[in-house]
Amino acid sequence: MAKSLITLTTDFGEADYYVAAMKGVILSINPAAEIVDLTHQIAAHDIYAAAFTLKCCYADFPKDTIHVVVVDPGVGSNRRPILVMTDNYRFVGPDNGVFSYIYQSEQVNRVVHLTTEHYFRLPVSNTFHGRDIFAPSAAYVSKLVEWRMMGEEIDDPVHFNIPAPAMLPDGHIRGHVIHIDRFGNVITNITKTQLTDEVLQGGVKVRLGKLEAARVLTHFGEAGPNELFAYFGSAGFLELAVPRQSAARMAETRRGAEVEVVVN
Amino acid sequence: MAKSLITLTTDFGEADYYVAAMKGVILSINPAAEIVDLTHQIAAHDIYAAAFTLKCCYADFPKDTIHVVVVDPGVGSNRRPILVMTDNYRFVGPDNGVFSYIYQSEQVNRVVHLTTEHYFRLPVSNTFHGRDIFAPSAAYVSKLVEWRMMGEEIDDPVHFNIPAPAMLPDGHIRGHVIHIDRFGNVITNITKTQLTDEVLQGGVKVRLGKLEAARVLTHFGEAGPNELFAYFGSAGFLELAVPRQSAARMAETRRGAEVEVVVN
Amino acid sequence: MAKSLITLTTDFGEADYYVAAMKGVILSINPAAEIVDLTHQIAAHDIYAAAFTLKCCYADFPKDTIHVVVVDPGVGSNRRPILVMTDNYRFVGPDNGVFSYIYQSEQVNRVVHLTTEHYFRLPVSNTFHGRDIFAPSAAYVSKLVEWRMMGEEIDDPVHFNIPAPAMLPDGHIRGHVIHIDRFGNVITNITKTQLTDEVLQGGVKVRLGKLEAARVLTHFGEAGPNELFAYFGSAGFLELAVPRQSAARMAETRRGAEVEVVVN
Repeated sequence: MAKSLITLTTDFGEADYYVAAMKGVILSINPAAEIVDLTHQIAAHDIYAAAFTLKCCYADFPKDTIHVVVVDPGVGSNRRPILVMTDNYRFVGPDNGVFSYIYQSEQVNRVVHLTTEHYFRLPVSNTFHGRDIFAPSAAYVSKLVEWRMMGEEIDDPVHFNIPAPAMLPDGHIRGHVIHIDRFGNVITNITKTQLTDEVLQGGVKVRLGKLEAARVLTHFGEAGPNELFAYFGSAGFLELAVPRQSAARMAETRRGAEVEVVVN
Repeated sequence: MAKSLITLTTDFGEADYYVAAMKGVILSINPAAEIVDLTHQIAAHDIYAAAFTLKCCYADFPKDTIHVVVVDPGVGSNRRPILVMTDNYRFVGPDNGVFSYIYQSEQVNRVVHLTTEHYFRLPVSNTFHGRDIFAPSAAYVSKLVEWRMMGEEIDDPVHFNIPAPAMLPDGHIRGHVIHIDRFGNVITNITKTQLTDEVLQGGVKVRLGKLEAARVLTHFGEAGPNELFAYFGSAGFLELAVPRQSAARMAETRRGAEVEVVVN
Repeated sequence: MAKSLITLTTDFGEADYYVAAMKGVILSINPAAEIVDLTHQIAAHDIYAAAFTLKCCYADFPKDTIHVVVVDPGVGSNRRPILVMTDNYRFVGPDNGVFSYIYQSEQVNRVVHLTTEHYFRLPVSNTFHGRDIFAPSAAYVSKLVEWRMMGEEIDDPVHFNIPAPAMLPDGHIRGHVIHIDRFGNVITNITKTQLTDEVLQGGVKVRLGKLEAARVLTHFGEAGPNELFAYFGSAGFLELAVPRQSAARMAETRRGAEVEVVVN
């Protein structure tokens, strides 16, 4: 049997038995599965942070990797468990918007509502679908069970609104804050597609909340103390930071807020 | 060589080299071993928490998995290192009661005092038997070394007292608190074997310390603010919680305390 | 393809996508690689702690294991990425001294400056060489790519000064503090090579900062409350501790400070 790669992203932490139970269930169904922890330290119920974290690294994994996300505030309600099938990957998790970025960046071929109890761990608890639905479903997907056996195709998966950066008439760029990391660094949805190297060479300012970054740096070391500066982070997005301080707190900004690149 | 699954449960945390050293030792002896972290965040020396955590997920792993537990306040003393062989699994760890639940729930075929230095990492340190005794012993077990080579059978392994729930003459059920998780949720030893769906339908109250839960819910979302409520958790036990607060602190209870289900 | 073992030591923590991205990159290049986390909780930019942690367990891993260390305060500057080849292991990381202990304890056959972009993840970001240089380089090393293809041999790798313990004319031993762990335990560079069992039997004192340990114990349990005591730790070094307190803080010492063993 081919080695199958399954990644896990949850808000379970690592102190309890929850992650281990998921791994035991997967390996009981498919001993050839290889499991990689993406992270288990998503803030409790923060589907936006889970979506962002997945977005930043899912494509570094080999083709056909199965990415499982269990950040699931609606566990036990009637939110749907789903399987998302794209050209390159498969994704298993709750239908709560956690795959919103995937719907944008991947060629999605099918979204399946997982309904077949045969592929669940029974009895299904009300509080732990990670173990009882998502882990076993992912394991069966890794064993190449046909999706038609596992549920029905749907065409209305939940996704949260991700505004695209806008090019303004004066040449400025309006984007949004999509993530704030634990250091208070602010990640925007602006990439080099909008803020090209050509535009950068002419010089820009970046307005964030109450502050303004006067320049876009290529190395952190160049920033002055207390300086809000912008840079392109390792995930490809324009980010804003202040050395050793929280840019988010200093600028009084938060996820969803506007950010504007002003071209000189 | 068949793939052998070995799980690790310790109180070592993940910041130091301790867990890595155990893994290196295992893989040096059996390169085909596959290691799964159960958790390394057991509170220091808390054998009760380790026993409970193991109990909640060991059976989700495939048959023949080797579960290693190193929560070992007696390291360096003359407490015995043991191998517990059951119909389905093998367990390696210190003989300090950490396998007490296993002795109840599994068909135990043999408990072996591990004494053969040939299967240890030498010289054995006084402070790190996880690396020097338990990891190599588990690795040799995974290579199917005959137990007779590794030590001698014993018939008096240490176990801590786990009181069974009692059915009282008035139909009430008396149980005990067996675990308090990091959210302050209180896990009791009462299961659906005692508190059947039939009894539940008639309505019950659950007395815990200074408080009383007026109902057993199936979904957390139904609980009111500050309400102590009961529910069956994902490990199959009756648990008590208060939304966003510590039920254990509010009820002023602790591990070992009595809990009583009052039938209406 | 033979199974290749790769360990990872970083200061990335486990909450973000960084470690997962490295694993995805490695497994995309060499699906047969087996990855073991050494730790990701090195204090930010603490190359000394990373060097010590690696030293304490690298040799517990099987021959030919590839140890990757990404504690890299100079990321984006012109510090060199290197591959260290020894008789038993290979090491990949930044040339900032993090392999200083390895240069002492292993037979080093070659240090290679990794320069061939073909073996990098392109484009190489300024801030995440763990993903873009070290992970892919290690993966290609695990696929037995010839080192000549990957860069050029160098003879001046950076190493920080590790003073050897000195035997003083009066028979005393002068060593240094090489690590302080998170409990405040103080690890010195003195081993049984200097402080032999024979010397120990005659009785010694150990001077550390403002304090003196009156004895070298073999079991922690023998120490009195508030007693500074010495012992040989599981990594083979003479260590100093105070029960349930920080020996480093009580003695007012720090990494690099002198420690003296006074023979009776």
